[in-house]
Amino acid sequence: MKDINGERLLSDLGELSAIGGRPDGGLDRLAWSEADLEARHWFAARMRDSSLEVRFDEALNVFGHLPGAGGPFLLTGSHLDSVPSGGRLDGAYGAVAALEVLRTLVESKDPIANRVEIVGFADEEGVRFESGLIGSKALCGELELVGLSGRRDWTGVPIPEVLQATGVDLAGMNNARSHLASVSRFLELHIEQGPRMEASGTDLGVVTGIVSVHREVITINGMQNHAGTTPLNLRHDAGRAAARMAGQVKELVQSVDHEAVANVGVMRYEPGAVNVIPGRAEFTVEVRHLDDGVVRQITERVHDRIAEICGEESCRFEIRPLSDVPGAAMDPGMMATLDRVCAELGRTHGRLWSGAGHDAQVLARHVPTAMLFVPSRKGISHAPGESTGDAHLVLGARALLAGVRAILANS
Amino acid sequence: MKDINGERLLSDLGELSAIGGRPDGGLDRLAWSEADLEARHWFAARMRDSSLEVRFDEALNVFGHLPGAGGPFLLTGSHLDSVPSGGRLDGAYGAVAALEVLRTLVESKDPIANRVEIVGFADEEGVRFESGLIGSKALCGELELVGLSGRRDWTGVPIPEVLQATGVDLAGMNNARSHLASVSRFLELHIEQGPRMEASGTDLGVVTGIVSVHREVITINGMQNHAGTTPLNLRHDAGRAAARMAGQVKELVQSVDHEAVANVGVMRYEPGAVNVIPGRAEFTVEVRHLDDGVVRQITERVHDRIAEICGEESCRFEIRPLSDVPGAAMDPGMMATLDRVCAELGRTHGRLWSGAGHDAQVLARHVPTAMLFVPSRKGISHAPGESTGDAHLVLGARALLAGVRAILANS
Repeated sequence: MKDINGERLLSDLGELSAIGGRPDGGLDRLAWSEADLEARHWFAARMRDSSLEVRFDEALNVFGHLPGAGGPFLLTGSHLDSVPSGGRLDGAYGAVAALEVLRTLVESKDPIANRVEIVGFADEEGVRFESGLIGSKALCGELELVGLSGRRDWTGVPIPEVLQATGVDLAGMNNARSHLASVSRFLELHIEQGPRMEASGTDLGVVTGIVSVHREVITINGMQNHAGTTPLNLRHDAGRAAARMAGQVKELVQSVDHEAVANVGVMRYEPGAVNVIPGRAEFTVEVRHLDDGVVRQITERVHDRIAEICGEESCRFEIRPLSDVPGAAMDPGMMATLDRVCAELGRTHGRLWSGAGHDAQVLARHVPTAMLFVPSRKGISHAPGESTGDAHLVLGARALLAGVRAILANS
Repeated sequence: MKDINGERLLSDLGELSAIGGRPDGGLDRLAWSEADLEARHWFAARMRDSSLEVRFDEALNVFGHLPGAGGPFLLTGSHLDSVPSGGRLDGAYGAVAALEVLRTLVESKDPIANRVEIVGFADEEGVRFESGLIGSKALCGELELVGLSGRRDWTGVPIPEVLQATGVDLAGMNNARSHLASVSRFLELHIEQGPRMEASGTDLGVVTGIVSVHREVITINGMQNHAGTTPLNLRHDAGRAAARMAGQVKELVQSVDHEAVANVGVMRYEPGAVNVIPGRAEFTVEVRHLDDGVVRQITERVHDRIAEICGEESCRFEIRPLSDVPGAAMDPGMMATLDRVCAELGRTHGRLWSGAGHDAQVLARHVPTAMLFVPSRKGISHAPGESTGDAHLVLGARALLAGVRAILANS
């Protein structure tokens, strides 16, 4: 059996990186932007070069499989869009590697090539519109289009106007789900976007699931007062209460679960003057773990602790939930197969969860789904400095090919 | 000997409160504003009603003493200006009480009336211009007028233009100091502006000094990163480091000195997104204590602690000093006299320092100076809700009268 062509993979990645590429090595390829549309057409052309049959759906997700093949398919790929000032690998790598895998199967005249479909998803990042538009959700019939026509993009232009010239069929977007019946499984290769694999010297990661994410805003109300004339013990210092909480979130999380993470990303004191005791403080808390129950447990601990602190500091607090995104478990059978494949490649490998969202998170709710990770240098992602060594990029595609073969051999 | 006329005192305070008075009971009487000028002329007229000789100096500080008296004077009074949306007692109370005291001495035909001068200072608050213009500093020859002509008020109008129509002699302001030779002592009655006297049930306070104030900005630099993919132990979380510090400033201050205060009034995380680990955090620290040495000691402890925390959190820090205002000790002899006077009035009394700045802070660098405090309800000041009960207002003026008599009897 033929192996993937590493040079071709890297060359294709280089070509695709130039579309929307930034001088600093990063990428500006927002969903359905000109650069994103150009990338989709580049991907379609590359598929046609390998004699694949290409199809765009209503969301401009772009699919390719051998002519005449009717599924059910093992679908593999990732997204082609990026965040603003993002990296060149987040998404694009998984799509180009999928193309390389199917090309290799076709060139090998491997009969399983008929059972594989590849995809370049649209708008995985979900940052251009605050609308919930996500290409893989269109495929899975999860889009809620109600009220979408009233929404705007980040420059204030109504979404339908923005999309008019792109070819996206906003009204018909959920018709994309008609294709889901032809998809039996989904397998996504992606960069880790975190530092764990590099730190532990792991070459290949089998993803166990994608975390559940809870976000909330905590507001603390104390009493604004003169910082010179109010003794420390007579203060209702909202800033101190907020700082005490933010300063112990880490320990609190670790007391519940050593794999969970949490973040206090926003912190504001009011009125915000050097000589005024803060009467109000506001901060965000984000909690992530594979298990929704652990996320809930940590969130409850935070609430218990903030109640204690506010009691001690004579302050009051309010909690406003921002969002809850459920986690997604990967398919145990596919995970076991990928473990074996990685072992056979003779490289260090291990299981890990994904702290970031992926197309696989949506697909997992509908078909057996799995993910493979390669390491990210220094854990940098969503930034121009995002990178992975060429050897790891080639190794990941090789593991994807072996995974596709093994999964289809088992089913 | 006659006692002060409490009704007249309160009635005068009521009249003065109406000048620049707000519907919410507060006061808008910014330095040298129309309301402030009107208040100065009202004060001058009231002094003339009592046959005092009235004099405005170059800063529009307004003085009054018996005709023919040449000093040296025990000067007593306070300021007539307010902060925006301030209270009706901060400053005005001490000026009106001084008037009531001198009127009483005159009506008593007390020969010491010749040795007393009263004053309504201009611009004690120093908030209208970022210029250092302070009426009592003009009297003390402490003004630095260099570059003042280039400065602007808070609405952007150049200071000389603002002051042109007011009668303030900007260029000649430091000539006001010629009068300082006639001032042998200064005594100021003021509201506490804090909650300590009310909390401890103290009716009269003898001020030991006005605190030294150090202000600085601490910036913490960590590493901005993805909050989902970066494990807690691999983070350089600038926000967590800042919060840990802000959350323990109180304990650190109290470990050095139980009378010192400190405040973290400003706190900002960057980039400030719910799902991004803060790469940078900035907060202010303000430390106050009577003793400059204690302020320095606390500041050094904060620096030691932030260094430890940044070591633990893999962050770096920078400290930028904002300002250092030296403290001012009150005159021990005058304090002892005031202690005795308060005891003789048969009311609860005690010594305390002032966490806020006062005209007495400036005068203390030039002549023996002392201050008396009456309680502030709920410690509220620099706000429309600032208040003190009528009984305490009358008691304060009575203590001021007794203090003036006792101090002049001793000297």
